[in-house]
Amino acid sequence: MKTPEVGIVMGSESDLGVMETAANMLQQFEVPFELTIVSAHRTPQRLYDYAQTSRKRGLKVIIAGAGGAAHLPGMLAAITTLPVIGVPIKSSNSIDGWDSVLSILQMPAGVPVATVALNNAQNAALLSVQILATHNKDLAQKLDDYKRTLTQKVTESIERVQTNYSFPNHFDER
Amino acid sequence: MKTPEVGIVMGSESDLGVMETAANMLQQFEVPFELTIVSAHRTPQRLYDYAQTSRKRGLKVIIAGAGGAAHLPGMLAAITTLPVIGVPIKSSNSIDGWDSVLSILQMPAGVPVATVALNNAQNAALLSVQILATHNKDLAQKLDDYKRTLTQKVTESIERVQTNYSFPNHFDER
Amino acid sequence: MKTPEVGIVMGSESDLGVMETAANMLQQFEVPFELTIVSAHRTPQRLYDYAQTSRKRGLKVIIAGAGGAAHLPGMLAAITTLPVIGVPIKSSNSIDGWDSVLSILQMPAGVPVATVALNNAQNAALLSVQILATHNKDLAQKLDDYKRTLTQKVTESIERVQTNYSFPNHFDER
Amino acid sequence: MKTPEVGIVMGSESDLGVMETAANMLQQFEVPFELTIVSAHRTPQRLYDYAQTSRKRGLKVIIAGAGGAAHLPGMLAAITTLPVIGVPIKSSNSIDGWDSVLSILQMPAGVPVATVALNNAQNAALLSVQILATHNKDLAQKLDDYKRTLTQKVTESIERVQTNYSFPNHFDER
Amino acid sequence: MKTPEVGIVMGSESDLGVMETAANMLQQFEVPFELTIVSAHRTPQRLYDYAQTSRKRGLKVIIAGAGGAAHLPGMLAAITTLPVIGVPIKSSNSIDGWDSVLSILQMPAGVPVATVALNNAQNAALLSVQILATHNKDLAQKLDDYKRTLTQKVTESIERVQTNYSFPNHFDER
Amino acid sequence: MKTPEVGIVMGSESDLGVMETAANMLQQFEVPFELTIVSAHRTPQRLYDYAQTSRKRGLKVIIAGAGGAAHLPGMLAAITTLPVIGVPIKSSNSIDGWDSVLSILQMPAGVPVATVALNNAQNAALLSVQILATHNKDLAQKLDDYKRTLTQKVTESIERVQTNYSFPNHFDER
Amino acid sequence: MKTPEVGIVMGSESDLGVMETAANMLQQFEVPFELTIVSAHRTPQRLYDYAQTSRKRGLKVIIAGAGGAAHLPGMLAAITTLPVIGVPIKSSNSIDGWDSVLSILQMPAGVPVATVALNNAQNAALLSVQILATHNKDLAQKLDDYKRTLTQKVTESIERVQTNYSFPNHFDER
Amino acid sequence: MKTPEVGIVMGSESDLGVMETAANMLQQFEVPFELTIVSAHRTPQRLYDYAQTSRKRGLKVIIAGAGGAAHLPGMLAAITTLPVIGVPIKSSNSIDGWDSVLSILQMPAGVPVATVALNNAQNAALLSVQILATHNKDLAQKLDDYKRTLTQKVTESIERVQTNYSFPNHFDER
Repeated sequence: MKTPEVGIVMGSESDLGVMETAANMLQQFEVPFELTIVSAHRTPQRLYDYAQTSRKRGLKVIIAGAGGAAHLPGMLAAITTLPVIGVPIKSSNSIDGWDSVLSILQMPAGVPVATVALNNAQNAALLSVQILATHNKDLAQKLDDYKRTLTQKVTESIERVQTNYSFPNHFDER
Repeated sequence: MKTPEVGIVMGSESDLGVMETAANMLQQFEVPFELTIVSAHRTPQRLYDYAQTSRKRGLKVIIAGAGGAAHLPGMLAAITTLPVIGVPIKSSNSIDGWDSVLSILQMPAGVPVATVALNNAQNAALLSVQILATHNKDLAQKLDDYKRTLTQKVTESIERVQTNYSFPNHFDER
Repeated sequence: MKTPEVGIVMGSESDLGVMETAANMLQQFEVPFELTIVSAHRTPQRLYDYAQTSRKRGLKVIIAGAGGAAHLPGMLAAITTLPVIGVPIKSSNSIDGWDSVLSILQMPAGVPVATVALNNAQNAALLSVQILATHNKDLAQKLDDYKRTLTQKVTESIERVQTNYSFPNHFDER
Repeated sequence: MKTPEVGIVMGSESDLGVMETAANMLQQFEVPFELTIVSAHRTPQRLYDYAQTSRKRGLKVIIAGAGGAAHLPGMLAAITTLPVIGVPIKSSNSIDGWDSVLSILQMPAGVPVATVALNNAQNAALLSVQILATHNKDLAQKLDDYKRTLTQKVTESIERVQTNYSFPNHFDER
Repeated sequence: MKTPEVGIVMGSESDLGVMETAANMLQQFEVPFELTIVSAHRTPQRLYDYAQTSRKRGLKVIIAGAGGAAHLPGMLAAITTLPVIGVPIKSSNSIDGWDSVLSILQMPAGVPVATVALNNAQNAALLSVQILATHNKDLAQKLDDYKRTLTQKVTESIERVQTNYSFPNHFDER
Repeated sequence: MKTPEVGIVMGSESDLGVMETAANMLQQFEVPFELTIVSAHRTPQRLYDYAQTSRKRGLKVIIAGAGGAAHLPGMLAAITTLPVIGVPIKSSNSIDGWDSVLSILQMPAGVPVATVALNNAQNAALLSVQILATHNKDLAQKLDDYKRTLTQKVTESIERVQTNYSFPNHFDER
Repeated sequence: MKTPEVGIVMGSESDLGVMETAANMLQQFEVPFELTIVSAHRTPQRLYDYAQTSRKRGLKVIIAGAGGAAHLPGMLAAITTLPVIGVPIKSSNSIDGWDSVLSILQMPAGVPVATVALNNAQNAALLSVQILATHNKDLAQKLDDYKRTLTQKVTESIERVQTNYSFPNHFDER
Repeated sequence: MKTPEVGIVMGSESDLGVMETAANMLQQFEVPFELTIVSAHRTPQRLYDYAQTSRKRGLKVIIAGAGGAAHLPGMLAAITTLPVIGVPIKSSNSIDGWDSVLSILQMPAGVPVATVALNNAQNAALLSVQILATHNKDLAQKLDDYKRTLTQKVTESIERVQTNYSFPNHFDER
């Protein structure tokens, strides 16, 4: 089993629905990762241990998802110097997601968290691949390929819309 | 020197302007306290030590003030079972104070933080006195006296307004 | 029947779904409590009576839940000097819960309300237990035990995730 | 001295700068009024007394201004059946005025408060005159006159702009 | 048929679900009213005509409900000097109701709108009754009776909760 | 096939449900248009090409709909000097629509985007017709006709309400 | 004197500081315009007259700026079928500008207002030029020139930064 | 001159006050960087060129700061596969900073931007160092040293507070 380079953690089992899209994306890029639950508020010692051992265990990036008063990403970043990517999650009883967004984003000078969009664990995974790709040409190539698939999917949707609807499209018929 | 019953901590020296009003209030009630800086993000180990030793050092309540992505109150509450009172502070580059309010208030089930109004460290101190007064008749009496001074100050302001302005006040002249 | 130490009140019968989780938590900690409806706006006299008799009836903490322009917690705190814990409730026609959160949280200097997260009556109950535990070693011990069950539940969810999914977890396999 | 028909109350002496514009407006309309301080949180008994005696003392409308967790207008409306006009005041440490706006506006069914714009005590006074004018032709006439002065002031400002600037104004030169 | 004293208008047929609660409340108080649709944006001339004829047709109060960029209440108030009560309605594609609340509430000096809570047409009706009752002892008496029914309903809900749940209620058993 | 004068573009196929109402409106006005997908983030080159060829291909107005961090309207406006109308779309995982509204509206000086209401592609189409009608009397006439149908529909809804409900309507019975 | 093609109106003389930037921009493009004050709330008849005469007086676009509960742009659009560009203005006592933004932006289907950024009257003017340029090659050419000056100003600022600071800039030194 | 590994770009010269703190931080870490202005809206071609040449010119990370409808970070991320760090800047006429925060943060799936706190360019620089340090032990060591200086500065502030104030500090005197 390969040493994981990306650690995916989340504050609660209920975050798994959002966070497993990060795992799936990393599998697609064949980046070794690990995934587990670390609760800042219910397992603070585990949070410390996770952060403190992270670099020596070979991790290069940590992805941390949490909802509400989301302290997990920021506290990991307080302890490790690895890049920490924060995924704000809109949990039940959230005040429209503002709580997790602001709790993760508004870190003080000296302790950054790389915050992505609400519930967008997929982007957190891509960002971790981009970070690894800064020193891995193979991954950089895969990111280029992935970018082309994004474009390709738009092309397909353009065709689908033209086929299913009678709307004129002069731009593509030039 | 009496063992402190209330511990006042804050994330940064710049919070002192707000947080010293808590200290002044406790002095007024003759409640022994201590005050220092504990930064969740820059001194996470100190945060752990503070929380873990708090009860055995004799503290009964912790008051924690922080701004931005304010993790200090919530992380203290994650480690100790003492009541933790959180004071959201509107720091520079805050998004109107919403960040600290939501980071402190929206704690998950199992780990409460008693949140007071933005920048209202004075009320955090009063709340800590109310907590101590649940088992201290002397303090309860002082709280009654304090409540009367609040009323008294309103009475004085009513008179001041009547003296300085020509507005009729039939209610008090019944 | 034991004299209640915690009084749970709420503005409306429709708040009971949220507020009974506070009652359940207190039962779990074997803390004697009472629960009833007190509407600041529809039974203002009852609000006065409740607040004014609270300390002499033996209450040590009041938990008050309300939605919309939520005046119940703040008005109780205006009359009694007991600690009042406010639970903002997201009622129908609420503006995303902001109304009850701000109506409860933003109390003026001199009259604190200990505010907990939106709809989080469970945390209000825990906070009341923490307050009682400042002078009750037995309760303090139970809070320690409760904290361990929180950790234990995370441990169980970690195992459940590992069993149900194929995601690697190097951290726990060290 | 004429019996006041409008009672102006405010939560704190610091609200006077905003609230005296209401008094000035009522003087302009020659409507007898009274003005004093009633703090919901620091003088709850005075709030009760004020509300309970208001109708029998001859008041027809109450104007109540308050900031932060502004409970004064709503609690007056809970006790009296007179129309209560609420003026949200943006106090220091307000969260951008949202707290007082929502605390006053979002009253539950059965207990209305007529809310006006942030800091707009002048409009509260006008609204009280409109209410009195529903049964007072003289006042209704004065309101018509006042409306004409509003129009007149715009006319003057149009001329001032034309005089001071070189901008063409074809509309008024038709 | 009695001359209506209250005019209920709304911007769109889709607002009727909210606004008919105002009509029902006025029927309960036996206050003569009328109800129709007046769209500020789709029937501006009708808006002018409605406002300009309102006082001479015998109306004493106008209740206006609207959603989104809700200009109906404010534009009526711009033309008539009758008191105008605005009901912000949370329409589809509303930005959480903020748009209608702010469009109705934040009127400039000189042109007040008495704003009630989001979707709370019932309170708009009650407010109009309170306005009429300033010069109608019969209505004032009915308002007192109505206030007692509010209290009575709370009393019934207290008993219902006690009957259906095993929660202790020492306060009412004193 | 007539050269399109209005180009409708959207960031994603999922925006079609909202954006086809713009197409339908233009068909109703017999304004030639084209419709396709252009993603600022997934097809940036296509965005450039679309904007750069737009005027020479005969387009007079561009309507661009996008959700989340909605960069499509603003980037089109950065490249072309045609008027660009932006439609904020409330996509899934949007923060209540605020993200797309602010991303489209708050353009810097020099590069305007004509922003319409959330999800209101219909109004974007109408605005484009109004723009074309500045130099097309036939279209201006159709806009007048359309405005009359808006009024007519209100008239019909007034009658429907009167038929279906027993509410009095003195205004229309004058 | 040339017949104005753009009408600039604003709700109050105090909006002139913001709105004159629109006039200056139109002068720069040599587009004939007029400028005056039209208050929706204080001069509703003037608003009607302005809107109803606008097209026949030769106007092609209206720019309307207003603050608070900003009804001017939307009410003009309710009466005329000319394109109306709305400029939200952050007036004193505004709730952070949200009130004017939402009052102008969130218009119902059938009555669009082309909204620009807060206080950005300059962009409103540019948008009006873009609208006129849809049928005026000379103006279209000027817009291209203007776009080049925007680019040129950035180029100058790049050089200024390089001259004044020692920061390396490899991109421009390729 | 060393090839830059980090490219710092900003939308406008006025952003330099915020963004130069990023440059200073990189100098402190001896990381080669470049800094220039790239405006998404005024120099879209420059944006494309910058993004498209970035990886081949040797850049490993891009830091992009922008205010208002901030499209620069997201559009760079649309073109390059390098990690892009976005710095929301609170510009004049910003709606409290929300516009730039949401425009940068809420990117769609497939195109991440690593967002940091409002105006916190310093943290963007630190994050870029953390990214480079994933494959550079020397930098990782410097990050550890930097973290210690953060702790050291807190220690100094603790002592400063103790020296300047008479507040007891039992925690550090254990």
